[in-house]
Amino acid sequence: MTSIYILGAGLSSTVLINYLIEHSEKYDWQIVLGDTDLRLAQKKVNKHPRAKAFQFDVLNPLQVEEVAHKADIVVSMLPARFHAIIAKFCIKYKKNLLTASYISPEIEAMQQDALEAGIGIFMELGVDPGIDHMSAMRVIDRLKSEGAQLTAFFSGTGGLIAPQSDNNPWNYKFTWNPRNVVVAGQGTSMYIEKGQNKYVPYQRLFKNTLTTSIDEYGDFEIYPNRDSLKYRNVYGIENIPTLLRGTMRRKGYSQAWDVFVQLGMTDDTYRMEKPENFSFRDFVNSFLPYSESESVEEKLKTQLPELIDNTVLKKLKWLDIFESISVPKEAQTPAQILQFILERKWILEAEDKDMIAMQHQFEYIRANGSKGKLISSLVVIGKNQSETAMAITVGTPLAIAVKKVALGEFTQKGVQVPVNPEMYLPILEELEQIGITFNEIES
Amino acid sequence: MTSIYILGAGLSSTVLINYLIEHSEKYDWQIVLGDTDLRLAQKKVNKHPRAKAFQFDVLNPLQVEEVAHKADIVVSMLPARFHAIIAKFCIKYKKNLLTASYISPEIEAMQQDALEAGIGIFMELGVDPGIDHMSAMRVIDRLKSEGAQLTAFFSGTGGLIAPQSDNNPWNYKFTWNPRNVVVAGQGTSMYIEKGQNKYVPYQRLFKNTLTTSIDEYGDFEIYPNRDSLKYRNVYGIENIPTLLRGTMRRKGYSQAWDVFVQLGMTDDTYRMEKPENFSFRDFVNSFLPYSESESVEEKLKTQLPELIDNTVLKKLKWLDIFESISVPKEAQTPAQILQFILERKWILEAEDKDMIAMQHQFEYIRANGSKGKLISSLVVIGKNQSETAMAITVGTPLAIAVKKVALGEFTQKGVQVPVNPEMYLPILEELEQIGITFNEIES
Repeated sequence: MTSIYILGAGLSSTVLINYLIEHSEKYDWQIVLGDTDLRLAQKKVNKHPRAKAFQFDVLNPLQVEEVAHKADIVVSMLPARFHAIIAKFCIKYKKNLLTASYISPEIEAMQQDALEAGIGIFMELGVDPGIDHMSAMRVIDRLKSEGAQLTAFFSGTGGLIAPQSDNNPWNYKFTWNPRNVVVAGQGTSMYIEKGQNKYVPYQRLFKNTLTTSIDEYGDFEIYPNRDSLKYRNVYGIENIPTLLRGTMRRKGYSQAWDVFVQLGMTDDTYRMEKPENFSFRDFVNSFLPYSESESVEEKLKTQLPELIDNTVLKKLKWLDIFESISVPKEAQTPAQILQFILERKWILEAEDKDMIAMQHQFEYIRANGSKGKLISSLVVIGKNQSETAMAITVGTPLAIAVKKVALGEFTQKGVQVPVNPEMYLPILEELEQIGITFNEIES
Repeated sequence: MTSIYILGAGLSSTVLINYLIEHSEKYDWQIVLGDTDLRLAQKKVNKHPRAKAFQFDVLNPLQVEEVAHKADIVVSMLPARFHAIIAKFCIKYKKNLLTASYISPEIEAMQQDALEAGIGIFMELGVDPGIDHMSAMRVIDRLKSEGAQLTAFFSGTGGLIAPQSDNNPWNYKFTWNPRNVVVAGQGTSMYIEKGQNKYVPYQRLFKNTLTTSIDEYGDFEIYPNRDSLKYRNVYGIENIPTLLRGTMRRKGYSQAWDVFVQLGMTDDTYRMEKPENFSFRDFVNSFLPYSESESVEEKLKTQLPELIDNTVLKKLKWLDIFESISVPKEAQTPAQILQFILERKWILEAEDKDMIAMQHQFEYIRANGSKGKLISSLVVIGKNQSETAMAITVGTPLAIAVKKVALGEFTQKGVQVPVNPEMYLPILEELEQIGITFNEIES
């Protein structure tokens, strides 16, 4: 019997857990689910005879070691910062580890140790990162095999609200970790265009978006996501003159979000001094100069004339950001306060459905010298509150990979991302069987 | 004989070293000057019978320990990040330590240990921080003793170029550590105005400056400097409704500097990928979107329409920033490259003189109910290349404090800043004897 440990039983794990439990009888697996919240883990395994729950605290190294010792395969769905400690013990006990998170510098540094232990640390197996890599690489490898030369690759992914549940002026709700949305993009984003490296600091990030559309789903905008430059190596397209990976939002989102960025409301590095009854309106006013005569709304227009127009003001007002509603004591940094304000309004209702949108655009010169363009788009709509589009697209490719590792079909060693056909082909094929299918338009 | 160790023999130490050597015979001191560059230290002590030089490396803890063991008093002129390790050994060997740097969180945390060791860690004894605190506190304590109630306190300090040497469109040259100038203001600045706390993120810092003028010296602008809020406690004016400490520049500087900030050119956190012959112009272009048709200059105008006007363009062009001059290999981060570009042009010539400008503005209600305003201004012009205004105003108050500690006149224990009259009065009085005098205008 193969013992598969899943660490983290939150919303994003549901589809993964169900997939593995469903296949447990057939393949003779035992599924062991750990979470700080034992009841949550118990609920998720639902007394299945091949699954059990336990109370797991990643901050207890003895417990992490015990997991690595007992497990045959470890799957971490915990926040990315915890993967390194888990990987350390997986190396010690020579157990394969799989996650849906970006390779961190700490994980990258374990390459040699993982190779020597003879294990695979399979990373970036969710949707973004994950399905984005796999679907892009399938097209890139196909074009290469046809003798085409890639001249540009743009790629965007967004976790959004489905059109049928889209009923607010931001065309956005939290469908994923709200904190990550609030602090998204901090630092410098990098991409390459026509052979020129471009560096976009946070304060410019939401000002220069690309726009695109997906058939039947309307318009989107894309802002650059982290370091696209390194994907020239990861994707084996070292000489491509244009490469940009980005985050998708509905049109108009970025200009309004930029108001928060410019004012400093997304800063998570200091605690604000908050007097009694500190309100949403006081919060906004804290980032605007004092004025004897101008209102908060007027000062906002004076300070950010290039950003504030009627559509942006409508978005801001809809959030109640100019109201005298009290900020709770627990919210202390600007980012925490902004998150509180947003969570009141951007919350998924019980009947709401989320949406994952992804689009790749490839430009190339064919072997015969003609220019080609291929647009490959994916939209996944959530089924219900637990089987969200995010949980499906993060959990399913990861679960398939776990299955392949358990069956001895994925035998790669070292730190891996799914960019080789031995990995991406079987995963994409199985995803297609459940309707996760890219629509390709070539011109 | 009292043994006074000075660590760091750079430009900023010259006046300090000379002062202590000049007084060494009278007070029976031995001056011991350590620097990584032994020849520099030897040159500075100039074979004086009561002074000696040694090779000192702060990264060698054994050597730091030896200094703390042998010295009676330690003065650190090293970069601020090294003070904590020196303080640690000063506490161990119960020796007083003096510096001209801001109290860091590490130094602040040594309060109890310093008190228990019965030593003083005297910080912020230069010009800014230093003379700014002392001169402000003298006025604040005087107004308090007259029964006045402070309603506002604005304070600005700048290390600038003297009018007679001011011959470029920025009205600025490096008179101090260039790197500190390039990265100045990163993070969030905080102040209070009419009872409202104000938070200014880096991307807004150079957009909302105050303007002021000093008789005979013309106009200046002031941008907020770090956390002014904490000085309500430090200065004992907890209930003051308006308090802002800032950095002074010549009028027009901030708008042009903001171009670098907005584009991301002051970022010191990542290395740029630089192709062969990467030029100043390429550097600027790295922060601007690709365009088929627009030049770098045109893109700059398109991207930052609110910042780029003819006076700003003139400043930028004067720096050769649009030229095809190669960036050297050693300059890797944006901040390092920008510093290289600036150092070509903002360099002090042999005959150039620098200037320290400082101004406090106090608003208050007198005991009789009438409103008062007091403007207290200081300008110090450098004498020559070694006795710069910066070296004089940093070194002299620190040297006076060292003397007072050596003579047993400053006996304070724990971590200290010069905000009490026992410290600021004797220092300010001696500064006045050498012409460092504030001009007060009351209305």
